[in-house]
Amino acid sequence: MNNACIGIFDSGFGGLTVMRAVIETLPKENLIYFGDTARLPYGEKSAEAIQKFSLENAEFLQSLGIKILVVACNTACSVAMDLLKQTFSIPIIGTIDPAVEYLKGKIKDGAIVVLGTRRTIQSGVYQQKLKEQFPKNETIAIVCPLFVPLVEEGFSEHKLAELAAWEYLHPFQDKKIDAVLLACTHYPLLHVALQKMLGEGILLVDPGIACANSIYNLLHDAALLNNNVGKPDYKFYVSDDPHKFRKIGQVFLQSPMADVELISLSDYTHLCGH
Amino acid sequence: MNNACIGIFDSGFGGLTVMRAVIETLPKENLIYFGDTARLPYGEKSAEAIQKFSLENAEFLQSLGIKILVVACNTACSVAMDLLKQTFSIPIIGTIDPAVEYLKGKIKDGAIVVLGTRRTIQSGVYQQKLKEQFPKNETIAIVCPLFVPLVEEGFSEHKLAELAAWEYLHPFQDKKIDAVLLACTHYPLLHVALQKMLGEGILLVDPGIACANSIYNLLHDAALLNNNVGKPDYKFYVSDDPHKFRKIGQVFLQSPMADVELISLSDYTHLCGH
Repeated sequence: MNNACIGIFDSGFGGLTVMRAVIETLPKENLIYFGDTARLPYGEKSAEAIQKFSLENAEFLQSLGIKILVVACNTACSVAMDLLKQTFSIPIIGTIDPAVEYLKGKIKDGAIVVLGTRRTIQSGVYQQKLKEQFPKNETIAIVCPLFVPLVEEGFSEHKLAELAAWEYLHPFQDKKIDAVLLACTHYPLLHVALQKMLGEGILLVDPGIACANSIYNLLHDAALLNNNVGKPDYKFYVSDDPHKFRKIGQVFLQSPMADVELISLSDYTHLCGH
Repeated sequence: MNNACIGIFDSGFGGLTVMRAVIETLPKENLIYFGDTARLPYGEKSAEAIQKFSLENAEFLQSLGIKILVVACNTACSVAMDLLKQTFSIPIIGTIDPAVEYLKGKIKDGAIVVLGTRRTIQSGVYQQKLKEQFPKNETIAIVCPLFVPLVEEGFSEHKLAELAAWEYLHPFQDKKIDAVLLACTHYPLLHVALQKMLGEGILLVDPGIACANSIYNLLHDAALLNNNVGKPDYKFYVSDDPHKFRKIGQVFLQSPMADVELISLSDYTHLCGH
């Protein structure tokens, strides 16, 4: 079981920033990544659609014999985490709880800002968990739907990204802000534009890094860490266009990517009633 | 048959600009619109995925007894039109042929610019058809993937749209341009930003309006025009989130929208081999 893979899914490319953090934190683990590129993006779609997609993605990864499932998509975490935990018996880790946990001891009395997709913010999950852990800190939640296409089109460090960041954040520029949660896996790639807009004193939190630490702790406590000395194995699957995934994905992963395999999710819909 | 509906599909919202043009040109016709909102956007996805989606969408509309099918999505037209015509026996009209036809007699010796999604431009269909009709005019094709999210997020007349237009078009500002084809159904909503960037002397062509004229001609020639005097019937179906579709869709349709019904496409996949 210890050398079984960690399974990671996302709507498409963004979850590769989480995979990158997992590789850095757990360099001996074998990893399988699934990107649902036929149906991306999830961020603007209904909770019901994202729940159905998440069940199918998880069923596919479970069929490959993974030891732990990582939901590397804040939108899926915000609407499908409870359902996934009810449906599957393997351990499941997302980005939200680790990101909230990560803030402990790192903030004072200022506001905590959450930047996310429309579905993530409308679910209210981040806001509720932050309120429980940090009842004295104001929570400000901002929907930033232009950030994903800006990153995917290569404008992360372009003045278009700066202008979009200003558009979303300037209404709050008089607030005392302690931390900003980059609660969508694309947003860490906008680090430079966001830090420029916010100033140097504000903590930017990448939930992918917090998530990787939680995976380490869980595997360690369950004695499931892989201690193999060989080179770990990384596999990539997508539901559309493996060639494009490989090309764009390497920007997110920040390293070369092995072959990418196309799969049809119509074989993994048993749990979804159709 | 004359009072049967015209069936229109698109990946989501953009085709409503075509529907608007059809309503203006053919105010007596009953219309059914299907927006594939669970799988939008199409513009960046593979030809194979878009062909599969298009067959499913068309099969759904055909099951409702339509008299003509309108493919109100330039991306689907560019990769799935031949396949749809081979598969279905009802008349099918898209946006590309009408838009190219529309230019006849309206241009001189300047370049013709095509603005579209990555898939539309990479298919080369617009470029090939323009070359056949206007062999002496240079064709310039530009991929503009940020335009769709800018329109959908309400930034059509914002400086973000102007900056994106400048980013895409400024490499060609020394060219003598006669006409610009807005070869994605979202782009007509960027008319103001584009005309400001291009100057007043350049013809902006909305393929939706050209498409509506072609539908009129086809129905007229086949004696299929609806001459009922009653109020026409408009029905809307989507594959995800009818509430959001109604809210955003009214901006594209520029008129109030009746109830929107959610359907599952898993009942319309007989042609797709799964």
